[in-house]
Amino acid sequence: MLLALLLLAPVANDVPQRLVGGALADGMAYQRLSELTDTVGARLSGSPGAEAAVQWALQRFKQDGLDAHLEPVKVPHWVRGEETGEILAGARRQPLAITALGGSVGGDVTAEVVEARSLDDLRDVRGKVVFFNHEMNKPQDYGRDVDLRSRGPAVAGRAGAVGVLLRSLATASFRSPHTGVTIYEADAPRIPAAAVSTEDADFIHRMLARGPVKAHFTLGCRWLPDADSFNVVADVRGRERPDEIVLMGAHLDSWDLAQGANDDGAGVAMVMEAGRLLQALPQHPRRTVRVVLFMNEENGLAGGKAYAAAHAGELAKHVAAIEADAGAGRALGITLRAGDGGDAMLMPWLEPLHTALGIGLQREGEAGGADISPMGPAQVPFAGVHVDPTHYFDIHHSAADTLDKIDPQLLAQDAAAHALLAYGLAEMPQPLPRPPAREPRNRQEPLKAH
Amino acid sequence: MLLALLLLAPVANDVPQRLVGGALADGMAYQRLSELTDTVGARLSGSPGAEAAVQWALQRFKQDGLDAHLEPVKVPHWVRGEETGEILAGARRQPLAITALGGSVGGDVTAEVVEARSLDDLRDVRGKVVFFNHEMNKPQDYGRDVDLRSRGPAVAGRAGAVGVLLRSLATASFRSPHTGVTIYEADAPRIPAAAVSTEDADFIHRMLARGPVKAHFTLGCRWLPDADSFNVVADVRGRERPDEIVLMGAHLDSWDLAQGANDDGAGVAMVMEAGRLLQALPQHPRRTVRVVLFMNEENGLAGGKAYAAAHAGELAKHVAAIEADAGAGRALGITLRAGDGGDAMLMPWLEPLHTALGIGLQREGEAGGADISPMGPAQVPFAGVHVDPTHYFDIHHSAADTLDKIDPQLLAQDAAAHALLAYGLAEMPQPLPRPPAREPRNRQEPLKAH
Repeated sequence: MLLALLLLAPVANDVPQRLVGGALADGMAYQRLSELTDTVGARLSGSPGAEAAVQWALQRFKQDGLDAHLEPVKVPHWVRGEETGEILAGARRQPLAITALGGSVGGDVTAEVVEARSLDDLRDVRGKVVFFNHEMNKPQDYGRDVDLRSRGPAVAGRAGAVGVLLRSLATASFRSPHTGVTIYEADAPRIPAAAVSTEDADFIHRMLARGPVKAHFTLGCRWLPDADSFNVVADVRGRERPDEIVLMGAHLDSWDLAQGANDDGAGVAMVMEAGRLLQALPQHPRRTVRVVLFMNEENGLAGGKAYAAAHAGELAKHVAAIEADAGAGRALGITLRAGDGGDAMLMPWLEPLHTALGIGLQREGEAGGADISPMGPAQVPFAGVHVDPTHYFDIHHSAADTLDKIDPQLLAQDAAAHALLAYGLAEMPQPLPRPPAREPRNRQEPLKAH
Repeated sequence: MLLALLLLAPVANDVPQRLVGGALADGMAYQRLSELTDTVGARLSGSPGAEAAVQWALQRFKQDGLDAHLEPVKVPHWVRGEETGEILAGARRQPLAITALGGSVGGDVTAEVVEARSLDDLRDVRGKVVFFNHEMNKPQDYGRDVDLRSRGPAVAGRAGAVGVLLRSLATASFRSPHTGVTIYEADAPRIPAAAVSTEDADFIHRMLARGPVKAHFTLGCRWLPDADSFNVVADVRGRERPDEIVLMGAHLDSWDLAQGANDDGAGVAMVMEAGRLLQALPQHPRRTVRVVLFMNEENGLAGGKAYAAAHAGELAKHVAAIEADAGAGRALGITLRAGDGGDAMLMPWLEPLHTALGIGLQREGEAGGADISPMGPAQVPFAGVHVDPTHYFDIHHSAADTLDKIDPQLLAQDAAAHALLAYGLAEMPQPLPRPPAREPRNRQEPLKAH
């Protein structure tokens, strides 16, 4: 029976043992994540932390024996500064737990607050602060409510508002505001915009039921000239078809409020570890596995766009792209976006994942990722490891995105899953059928300094 | 069978129905808590919020028909000011989520950090910042670790340290520091002392493993002259023995970082609601039920001491004292500290609690409370409603102690439990046997302005 399995299974050697054993026993993914988060720390595009992260990653890839280099990316450069706010309601003054949305202009705002529940819900907001409230209470709500953050300030500014306070997009809170990018529009006034903690949002909502409410807030954030930065690209060279590429990405930049352990240090650690383990195999997979650490996913997607542009001529040879950017929850399954018949082709190559981690191909949920989405028009198949999102948005984009939130054993399992998935995609005899073309998922325009 | 029960049960009338029905159906406890937390807000002793809370409570008691008055209390007056901090480790600078311990002197500190795990663990701390770390991870650990907060700065100052950073006493965190009182000693240097979030504590601990770590922090807190404040005292006059008193207390002051919903707005709302419901009974209980909202539990216990002193001559007639100061978790049982035979005497009077809320007398856990502890030497029996403490220390003394954390239905159940317990103690024909004398639980000396 064992012999039969060994003969039938396409991955019938000691590769799974090396990849899973290495990921779980070496402790290297967590060690790398600790280095990145503790010794580098926050790494918003254009910051010294981002540049330190680039150099750190390049050096670590080389240390692991990968063929690594930097690819230039011009990135927006926004800095936060001091930020304070308070609510004034009659004699009551209540300090706000507040943080500027990424990309907001700075400023000092004092005005009456009006609550809105959607972008269409903006009546009588001229001269006022629009308070965008919503009911996010599970990870799946993010997609529904994120427009309030990304487009709310532009829409409110166009309607004559003088500022925006957004209920944080969060699934839990101990008075922690969550930032994230907002995108102004060229022809709409740019008004200061900040997130408040869900507790503060509840407070504003309750106080509005009691009577008029004013907000006063000051944001010290500002735009600096665009900065020079890099994607970090590292290849595990394929033994037979080195020009065919399985890309495995994560983003190196993070928001500035914390260490970016969950978003996306964890993804960086997983794909670096998968790359290290693949590089160390006595026999490399057939195709090249390329690890790409993208810059500027959080506020511009310049890295993802730059990669797709610089490699436009090779995208037909990109046989798959994977992105790890959903934290380090337990691996639940493998997602795929390929042409017809792709599922059946990939399935046998996922047997080691089933044996080692109990996961297989998922029918639900599309594979993808912001940084790899610019490869969608070139019909690059997307694959991914779907990780449990339950607690991802508890700390997402907040000061609480710290190393202690990452479980070392789950991180190691996720790294093993990425290594096995990339191995299968790089070793299967024929590449996956390509899916229909898809527009980049993230439509945000490059942010302009101002 | 029903008739037999009615004849046997000591509370054999519509009192339980009125108390439980009123607490659960009127929604008044939560409404009062909302008023206190939203329209008054933070209420640290000496602050305008504390005085507003006193006036609010007096007015509400009168509105409910209780016989209410104020009793003067001289309180310490400490104010926080701005507070910032960062960790410096090589080239790495990491902002700290930091908040001064209540009572700390202000100051600006820059020094090397040394970690200590206990008050006995202070070697080579001269000129350094002592970082008190610990392993609190469940509510029951608070009693073990709180000495690091209350006495740590005094002990570290005596050993020559120049500042203290304390790992917050917390069972959960999203980068939220937890304050709480620290007590200097008369003959030890007073050094600035602050709490950092558990995440920052983990970071400092990890960075110390990598090499030397410095801390720089600035605390703007300071002491003002003692202030005049009040306990609020409101009686539901007993119908037969009005001079015998069942005291039901909570504390009206709170820390300054939030609204004090959990600590101790919830307790205030419960005992006010219990008082309202008892006052509204067609026939008052035999004895007087006295609701006392103490001032200054958090940083001096001046209210508890002032009450025991002002009423020293009546304490022999205090047949029981209850304190509600453990949040609004689910009621789990009734605790009692009385003389021999007290349990058996009280038991039948708890039948309505068992029927309505499924709780009865607990053998484990001592009844008590900081504010009522000064009545211990006078052998006043203590009783209490034990509420589930699981999440109490998640938000305790932090900016996240906000109204949204309180479950209105659990709060109402807890109010009903207090009403039923107080009714039983005030109605039972003979008072409980008195326990042996006990020293006040909270030994802290009055804080001196400085």
